[in-house]
Amino acid sequence: MAETIFELSGERISVWYRLAGNQNDAYATAQVICLEQTVEFPGELVPKGFIQDEIVGRIESFEELDDHHYLVQISYAVETSGFELTQLLNLCFGNSSIKPGIRLERFALPAGLSKFFRGPRYGRNGLRELLGVAGRPLLCTALKPMGLSAAQLGDLAYRFALGGIDIIKDDHGLADQPFAPFRERIQACVAAVERANRETGRRCIYIPNITAPANQIRNQALFAKKAGVGGLLVSPGLIGFDSMRALADDDRIALPVISHPALQGSFVINSDSGISHYALFGQLTRLAGADAAIFPNYGGRFSFSREECHQIAMGTAAAMGPFKLIFPAPGGGMNLDRIPDMVAVYGRDVIFLIGGGLHQQGPDLIENCRYFYKIAEQF
Amino acid sequence: MAETIFELSGERISVWYRLAGNQNDAYATAQVICLEQTVEFPGELVPKGFIQDEIVGRIESFEELDDHHYLVQISYAVETSGFELTQLLNLCFGNSSIKPGIRLERFALPAGLSKFFRGPRYGRNGLRELLGVAGRPLLCTALKPMGLSAAQLGDLAYRFALGGIDIIKDDHGLADQPFAPFRERIQACVAAVERANRETGRRCIYIPNITAPANQIRNQALFAKKAGVGGLLVSPGLIGFDSMRALADDDRIALPVISHPALQGSFVINSDSGISHYALFGQLTRLAGADAAIFPNYGGRFSFSREECHQIAMGTAAAMGPFKLIFPAPGGGMNLDRIPDMVAVYGRDVIFLIGGGLHQQGPDLIENCRYFYKIAEQF
Repeated sequence: MAETIFELSGERISVWYRLAGNQNDAYATAQVICLEQTVEFPGELVPKGFIQDEIVGRIESFEELDDHHYLVQISYAVETSGFELTQLLNLCFGNSSIKPGIRLERFALPAGLSKFFRGPRYGRNGLRELLGVAGRPLLCTALKPMGLSAAQLGDLAYRFALGGIDIIKDDHGLADQPFAPFRERIQACVAAVERANRETGRRCIYIPNITAPANQIRNQALFAKKAGVGGLLVSPGLIGFDSMRALADDDRIALPVISHPALQGSFVINSDSGISHYALFGQLTRLAGADAAIFPNYGGRFSFSREECHQIAMGTAAAMGPFKLIFPAPGGGMNLDRIPDMVAVYGRDVIFLIGGGLHQQGPDLIENCRYFYKIAEQF
Repeated sequence: MAETIFELSGERISVWYRLAGNQNDAYATAQVICLEQTVEFPGELVPKGFIQDEIVGRIESFEELDDHHYLVQISYAVETSGFELTQLLNLCFGNSSIKPGIRLERFALPAGLSKFFRGPRYGRNGLRELLGVAGRPLLCTALKPMGLSAAQLGDLAYRFALGGIDIIKDDHGLADQPFAPFRERIQACVAAVERANRETGRRCIYIPNITAPANQIRNQALFAKKAGVGGLLVSPGLIGFDSMRALADDDRIALPVISHPALQGSFVINSDSGISHYALFGQLTRLAGADAAIFPNYGGRFSFSREECHQIAMGTAAAMGPFKLIFPAPGGGMNLDRIPDMVAVYGRDVIFLIGGGLHQQGPDLIENCRYFYKIAEQF
């Protein structure tokens, strides 16, 4: 087979993997990853020259973490990504996701790839500006439970907005169900929040769930935009990271995007496989254009540790080429007592997402929101 | 909160989950799933009547599998799915994917939901008819390694087709890279396969990879269709199950679809979480319209067991409402010696996917294909 002469830029993507096993096994796994993620070909048959030298992944460093875990940095020619997110994901972890003992820890993109991504359109500063809230943590809640009518959800939204919530999002299970159809729900909730904003003088936003059939996503987003929503809720685990990216990039939509972790759990709940919390909810979510990443807070009804949550916060804020910092949005069974410790972990650049806990606080929902607001104001 | 009066059909979706833990813990987990997957609300606050009775998931059965595992059947009102795949996935496993000890084993859809899905357009019989191959296993190989030019890939395709391969697919890492641009590659490979078919009188098909940026998928598929490809390769783990469904359903495209498991590994490699092999590669892949499901064969360079692979084959063929049976397509480091045992596991309704192994067999690629064909013909 003749050698291909193709002029590469020389820029390379770096991916760090955490490998389980003894040193020899881990190093052998690292060598396998170099082939598996690129040529998918027996090593001895890889054509010499261009393909072997440039296309096959390259081990850049290999270090011991503990006596059963190693960290390897593997680099790939930037051209193998096709300069787009779907193939980038595939390149970094497609087939290796199917092998035990390999965890994608983090990645670094060269400038020649980053320039193809817009990243978060608003980021922390843009979202704060939109909401008119400087400094303090942002307050978010969800419209639930599923089964309420559009009018009932609108009524809830009105009370949340009156009580001082900044971001009112659909529960991620609200789709286009007959008991609260998508369009009816959007109109009811937008109207409710606008009415409350006229009364309070504040700028609360309503964020509907746009996680929908692939061929309806854009139309739903355009409908929502026209109706006056303040952002979009998207579950990239359900529709793919690049569908979220396409929504965030769309200049006809141009709304903040908040990501939800539905169906992404299998990537993170086993520490010797999958994708790290830092890379999944921090780096990838950010690269795919979300302005905030929802994830389950430690100590709630999910199992993330305080340290894993801290890692997510780091991923939302770490230096990452030209991309804006985004908000961590911990939620999932948290309640108001947890806020001081959460500020210790996340800092003030955080969105507190309290759903059921806000209802549990007491019988008057508006009063509960005001209490939530008063606590957040202290930080 | 007033009770919503909404007339439900009474039809329910059943989902079976395998729960890790002792009996008390497993039952408590089952109760939590009923709330988590629907109302996401504290149980004591769920509005009585319609929501508590109809919207919250319902435990239908609970049985011991072994002293640390239980199988629970939970049913959901069909309306909570919104009658579409994205929300159905979310309903079945969205948030519960984030909790350890819960594995989605299988599901059953009522007729009122199945009728909203076309399922596989071709299925086993349709694909056999298209290829003109009755009875014997189908032969598939992949164009690789990444780094070859479009002309070189076309040359490979020509030799594979001449040697008797039925389905020549892109390696799933071939996207739109500068060394073999998508359109150029499609045209070179279609032309090569057509030329070989004229010489052999057979009906080999070329199946390009259509896993692409969200807003380019349909255009790429339409381009490929017009160019004369015989099907589409899609990685639903990368672009979402419903994007595959939309391609398969599209009457302007109307091509067979083969799914690839890239990035789906995290769902299956830990037996106490994620989704079963049966449900992921069998039921879901089929519901999302694929005509064949690629997955890593046992004993290759991946870790699936013979029994897990058998379960996948069962999922491709089990009774499932109106949906056609699809082909299991085991691959991933298999070689020709494995074929007799594979027929024992999968039967004759199988696609043998041999990539690198076909190159390893000997120096003459066409001869290697003929040898592969001769073995398959015996079954």
